[in-house]
Amino acid sequence: MRKYTKKDFPLAKVRRLIEPGPIVLVSSAWKGETDIMTMGWHMVLEFEPSLIACYIWDANHSYRMIRRSGECVINIPTVELAEQVVGIGNTSGEDIDKFETFGLTAVPAKRVRAPLIAECYANLECKVVDTSLLRKYGVFVLEVVKAHAAMSPKYPKTLHYHGEGVFMVAGPRIDLSRKFKPQNL
Amino acid sequence: MRKYTKKDFPLAKVRRLIEPGPIVLVSSAWKGETDIMTMGWHMVLEFEPSLIACYIWDANHSYRMIRRSGECVINIPTVELAEQVVGIGNTSGEDIDKFETFGLTAVPAKRVRAPLIAECYANLECKVVDTSLLRKYGVFVLEVVKAHAAMSPKYPKTLHYHGEGVFMVAGPRIDLSRKFKPQNL
Repeated sequence: MRKYTKKDFPLAKVRRLIEPGPIVLVSSAWKGETDIMTMGWHMVLEFEPSLIACYIWDANHSYRMIRRSGECVINIPTVELAEQVVGIGNTSGEDIDKFETFGLTAVPAKRVRAPLIAECYANLECKVVDTSLLRKYGVFVLEVVKAHAAMSPKYPKTLHYHGEGVFMVAGPRIDLSRKFKPQNL
Repeated sequence: MRKYTKKDFPLAKVRRLIEPGPIVLVSSAWKGETDIMTMGWHMVLEFEPSLIACYIWDANHSYRMIRRSGECVINIPTVELAEQVVGIGNTSGEDIDKFETFGLTAVPAKRVRAPLIAECYANLECKVVDTSLLRKYGVFVLEVVKAHAAMSPKYPKTLHYHGEGVFMVAGPRIDLSRKFKPQNL
């Protein structure tokens, strides 16, 4: 599988990667163990600091690892990883080592202990900064503290989940910036 | 412009429309006035009741209308409306009537006073059910109380915003349901 070569990505521009709504792989680490989960319910909350809200079911093995470590990495896969995305979402880290089972490469992160997934297009190292929405909504508020993204292709073929096993693959991009007011760009 | 013919859409399946992450048009009404805003920061929170969280900037004219009325409609546009999506996002309802300016058709909703946009692929009638996240995060929690969606095409060419004036247009769909555990579908 292809491993993307990445560069540091500006934190204030993380919305470019997240706002289109891709399915993501969340990696975590706790007491020498790692896990990966597939996640589709997330949103941008703020540019600077770079905040993301995400829902994680509390029965998920990753939930406990992220809750205890206070950290995770949001990895953005492309269509080449579709089978891994589904496999990871249909297994539990309590039973298997997901990196090994799905042939993915764990790369050490810079600011968190959770590993980056080399085969993903981008990796966002996150700290949990607010757990006050957990009880009512199962929502973690994450701050992206370090981001890495591939420069090529400029626009990745991300996966977007419709439910019921159906994914949309990111299609063509259109640039309408000429129609924006400069302050809105 | 094409007006989509729609049918009632099951509330528990609203995630099919929202989870892929489309840019949406939010319509509102208050004291005989209507407004429309473009919104990209939203997420699914729950299947049943059908809950959606969304961020709205408090300087936005629509913010006040939604805050006061406690209602709105999330309308899902397709690529044919790209120029309207940008135009609506770059103007204020304080200055103009957005339905008139952008040639859109307001259709009465069933459960809320905010109007549906006939030219959008789907319309989700929403009640504000929780404002406790507004002060800290500018996030409204909405419950979808009635949903309408076109049956054709099966998968709409929605728009997904990257920022800086660039949109991704929804591409092909892939069905991987055969690889899911039945309880996860």
